[in-house]
Amino acid sequence: MKLQLALDRMTIHEAIAIAEIVRPYVDWLEVGTSLIKEFGMESLRQFRQAFPDKFIVADIKTFDNAAYEFSLCFDYGADAATVIGAAPLVTIETCKRIAAERERLCMIDLLNAPSKQLPFLFDSPHTAVCIHISKDQQEQGGHGSFEHSIEAYTPFLSSGGPKLAVAGGITSDSLPLLQTLRPDVVIVGTGITQAVDPLAAAKALYQSVHSHS
Amino acid sequence: MKLQLALDRMTIHEAIAIAEIVRPYVDWLEVGTSLIKEFGMESLRQFRQAFPDKFIVADIKTFDNAAYEFSLCFDYGADAATVIGAAPLVTIETCKRIAAERERLCMIDLLNAPSKQLPFLFDSPHTAVCIHISKDQQEQGGHGSFEHSIEAYTPFLSSGGPKLAVAGGITSDSLPLLQTLRPDVVIVGTGITQAVDPLAAAKALYQSVHSHS
Repeated sequence: MKLQLALDRMTIHEAIAIAEIVRPYVDWLEVGTSLIKEFGMESLRQFRQAFPDKFIVADIKTFDNAAYEFSLCFDYGADAATVIGAAPLVTIETCKRIAAERERLCMIDLLNAPSKQLPFLFDSPHTAVCIHISKDQQEQGGHGSFEHSIEAYTPFLSSGGPKLAVAGGITSDSLPLLQTLRPDVVIVGTGITQAVDPLAAAKALYQSVHSHS
Repeated sequence: MKLQLALDRMTIHEAIAIAEIVRPYVDWLEVGTSLIKEFGMESLRQFRQAFPDKFIVADIKTFDNAAYEFSLCFDYGADAATVIGAAPLVTIETCKRIAAERERLCMIDLLNAPSKQLPFLFDSPHTAVCIHISKDQQEQGGHGSFEHSIEAYTPFLSSGGPKLAVAGGITSDSLPLLQTLRPDVVIVGTGITQAVDPLAAAKALYQSVHSHS
């Protein structure tokens, strides 16, 4: 099991600074959607330069123009890039193909993906799928829950399927519920970056995640 | 009826250069998703500076983090910003609210929006909805068609509803079919930018669009 640190709603400089602090206790680094949309590929370039040996996920949330966007991310050094599972299947298929050609990881964000598309999204062992309670759902309250997600997605999980990631307001408190899914990747953002002591929060999550791997 | 020029898959410099050339024959300028994801808000900043009087659409394709992304676009001078109609409703609702507060336009991209969400997407006269055949659908062929879209969306169109935009590989050849929908905005990208003579292509489209308005 890996701990992925998601960095959002801050400058590239701030994101790199906090990633430097918690570096020993996170496995993967995510350049968040807001960094990409605010600062472009410069965010990925600086992360690759600052962390040459870390696995870096570009949360580009592709919804169209798949080959162009995924190739850009990989050209700028990302090891993985994300596509929206609610996008047209032709887009998701293209993302999978580009990632396979470049020997990188395609991560499919399941947020609001229609149930009829789920069999296709879970059909490849060489990708990852991400069960995701979105920022807007968290902030508005009452929208989506991991309990519901576990019920909805469990029928599609299998040992020969894609890697499983989970994301959305995860803290040490909510982690035990999610560990029942046996995820491969636990994604945490503000649970670390906005903790009173980010290093302590990362260490606690890292130890919990790795005690189950 | 307005003609919106969509600029994608080029540098900011190239995009501004081509927009300068066709400027008399386009009403609205769109800073495309690829410019935003490649160069960030710097793309919007430079467009606002180069075209202080043009209506500028930021095709940011928000799928989460609605208040942050829409506020960013408006802070950098966009008159309109886009949200994905397949996103969670809480995200779309937030985009509508931020646009209303800032007196800007929220444009909802209908690409792959689930039919159960359509009544909500078409319920506000103060927004725009965009019927969209995506780049990936166009390039892979056989995916989506305006004929199908016209059939699917016509039941939701009404005089008190949102503004209607159409996008996706539109040229002078396909425009007549789309004019049966009486759209408020016709979005053209490569039909102008990759034409042998972009100025002539823009002029022909502009005259056709404005002969129907």
